[in-house]
Amino acid sequence: MTRDDALALDAADALAPMRQLFDLPDGLIYLDGNSLGVLPRATAARVGQVITQEWGRGLIGSWNSAGWMDQPQRLGDKIARLVGAGPGELVVADSTSVNLFKVLSAALAVQREDAPTRRVIVSERSNFPTDLYIAQSLCQQQGCSLRLVDAPGQIAAALDADTAVLLLTQVNYRTGHLHDMAGLSRAAHRAGARVVWDLAHSAGALPVALNADGADYAVGCGYKFLNGGPGAPAFAWVRPDLVDRFVQPLSGWLGHAAPFAFEPGYQPAAGIARYVCGTPSVLAMAALECGVDTLLAAAPLGGMAALRAKSLALTRLFIAAAAERCAGQGLLLVSPDDDASRGSQVCLAFDPASDAGRAGAAHAVVQALIARGVVGDFRAGSPGKGLTGGAQDSAAEGPAANQADILRFGVTPLYTRFVDVWDAVAHLRGVIDRGEWREPRFTQRGAVI
Amino acid sequence: MTRDDALALDAADALAPMRQLFDLPDGLIYLDGNSLGVLPRATAARVGQVITQEWGRGLIGSWNSAGWMDQPQRLGDKIARLVGAGPGELVVADSTSVNLFKVLSAALAVQREDAPTRRVIVSERSNFPTDLYIAQSLCQQQGCSLRLVDAPGQIAAALDADTAVLLLTQVNYRTGHLHDMAGLSRAAHRAGARVVWDLAHSAGALPVALNADGADYAVGCGYKFLNGGPGAPAFAWVRPDLVDRFVQPLSGWLGHAAPFAFEPGYQPAAGIARYVCGTPSVLAMAALECGVDTLLAAAPLGGMAALRAKSLALTRLFIAAAAERCAGQGLLLVSPDDDASRGSQVCLAFDPASDAGRAGAAHAVVQALIARGVVGDFRAGSPGKGLTGGAQDSAAEGPAANQADILRFGVTPLYTRFVDVWDAVAHLRGVIDRGEWREPRFTQRGAVI
Repeated sequence: MTRDDALALDAADALAPMRQLFDLPDGLIYLDGNSLGVLPRATAARVGQVITQEWGRGLIGSWNSAGWMDQPQRLGDKIARLVGAGPGELVVADSTSVNLFKVLSAALAVQREDAPTRRVIVSERSNFPTDLYIAQSLCQQQGCSLRLVDAPGQIAAALDADTAVLLLTQVNYRTGHLHDMAGLSRAAHRAGARVVWDLAHSAGALPVALNADGADYAVGCGYKFLNGGPGAPAFAWVRPDLVDRFVQPLSGWLGHAAPFAFEPGYQPAAGIARYVCGTPSVLAMAALECGVDTLLAAAPLGGMAALRAKSLALTRLFIAAAAERCAGQGLLLVSPDDDASRGSQVCLAFDPASDAGRAGAAHAVVQALIARGVVGDFRAGSPGKGLTGGAQDSAAEGPAANQADILRFGVTPLYTRFVDVWDAVAHLRGVIDRGEWREPRFTQRGAVI
Repeated sequence: MTRDDALALDAADALAPMRQLFDLPDGLIYLDGNSLGVLPRATAARVGQVITQEWGRGLIGSWNSAGWMDQPQRLGDKIARLVGAGPGELVVADSTSVNLFKVLSAALAVQREDAPTRRVIVSERSNFPTDLYIAQSLCQQQGCSLRLVDAPGQIAAALDADTAVLLLTQVNYRTGHLHDMAGLSRAAHRAGARVVWDLAHSAGALPVALNADGADYAVGCGYKFLNGGPGAPAFAWVRPDLVDRFVQPLSGWLGHAAPFAFEPGYQPAAGIARYVCGTPSVLAMAALECGVDTLLAAAPLGGMAALRAKSLALTRLFIAAAAERCAGQGLLLVSPDDDASRGSQVCLAFDPASDAGRAGAAHAVVQALIARGVVGDFRAGSPGKGLTGGAQDSAAEGPAANQADILRFGVTPLYTRFVDVWDAVAHLRGVIDRGEWREPRFTQRGAVI
């Protein structure tokens, strides 16, 4: 395979025109849309209009006349179409962490009624930390405990008569492992547990079928594959037959049945509206809507199914090109090789026996790539622990995947081109081959999201 | 006093040039900045720059290069200057409701350690409902109870050996009553209670002295007197000697001691940084900063003390003009007549014996004023209850103030002119005098914030 082959794939790609919906810096190869999606072309003008017209001219009246009041539900309905939820089932509000606090509280409360002896939350040790932190907080408050497994294959076996809730991020942020939502939801239910899905790395990246796959609760992130901008609002979904069973604890006035009655007593709104808490940022939601609209614009071209097919073609190309062009450089594939188990990212680590592995070079390699105009990101392994397994443990099936320093490359089928992937791998080869990562300017660590 | 006298007051007003910092619709008299502040002239360009440059060009790198990571603290330090807090003590995050959940949880936890038998939260029945709803949720979770008083004068007497926390909004949203922060904080401490202040209607409206006045915890709103835009992020403050005593329950990753270590176990950051939860909206914070900067720009002209003096002159003018020009129209003053007890708003209600009072005309009067270009707002009385007291109960000292339908007029000394107040009262007189509120177009109710 050659670079021309990659260009030919782009020329034949029916989704290629979608890239025109985005304002991408010239010459940049951006493989970090799983951390922060790129700027849709529509966003600046739309947010500008909200500021100068809706806020500036309409002022307080815009809560009604510009539809600000309905925004959490209206935008929620749009996102619902991307994740297999129905209208009126999903709401935009707060951050992923805050929404997780709400839905996990609700799941635990439902279990306190249905199965009060179940006091364990099962999750992955390599789940995104904020999910674990929120779970720990609720465990501490409610006398529950957290049971963490080290590999996806251990999840089903960890569900037992003590399990109240299974809490998983559908695509693991470190490994790119895509969990089987239907199978694990079924396993959780069979074990008598409820299941909470964090869609941070799957909403907008691949088809999600919350209702069809038996999810109970879900949250998701607005600033990754939904292209909503830095710190965009998040969303929450609850299965319709569960939503009215519990009043989530962040009982702010906009989740009240009648916010403008200004009653001193809290009466939750019916349905998912009770998952709104305080007044949401209208500016941030306007930007998020522009991002969500970029995904809905792909509907005539096959929508999420077509985007998923392209995403897999892109990650397959990345894996194949890396295997061919970086052979012998000590790189291990952390992400699953199997399409069905891989999200929209490719994660690599250095074999600890390699030069780069011994030097702990992953962070410096990512920095050197950024200097070449290839933006991926770095995710540190568990601090104070090295790689304990070898290559055989690295395919998201052993502790190694949790502990290795990760080079993470996300593909976003709306705007990532096949030639971008090809060139990224060529640069990766160049950085390692020439030892660029040894340059002092790349070895200093800074925080990256 | 004549309209020319009002114009003369504006001509002599040293703060008058501050109005140029805002983009106000021509001819509009906006007396609702206590609900949604107006648009600063700087905001559209600044948010546009964040979108097109920092997000569009800088992408993920802007978390460091554009200072997005430090924004909650950096902007918090600016707000701290307006509310009598020190640098590093205040953080911007989430909504007021969510922040109240955090600080009230912390206050209750501190009391569980210090005085475990204290299980009562004291507040006002007419406190802003979201504050009561959040308190109710925490009471339910923690086996506490809420004790609500009907008048400011009853607060101190309601503090006893059972009281864990006194929770007050410094300026009551319905009446404009300004509580004595120093006196009530002292009373709370004397009674062995902690005190939580909601600064929604005071931060940016008048001088607040959190440290000097002995507050323990505080939250505040970004979209009222801070001019941060619809649904702007809120803030949280904790007295330095209390801040490290408790881990607030919304333990999101950005409140972790080392967010980018991605450790599975939560370790709270030292100090107020632990009150950040998930990833905050960068766009919303940029807009909020423009709003906060309009207040800081008043520092050379005397800052919050000068703004307070003007605010009181404006509300005094409103009250005097209304007493003179609307005499005999059945209007009662709900806000305190005494300067020291009045926030930056004037609230009126109709005497139930008047024509308008019998007709429940407050909402229609506000609508008729809006049609004349005078924007105040309406706050419904407790539903299902009429006015039980007479005029003597209306000065925020009896249940009447909680139950009457309120016409609310906020003044924002940064941009409200004396002539605006004069003209607003003239329009109010006109609406009542001509019975405009009887027109069907004004009698239909819609939701207003």
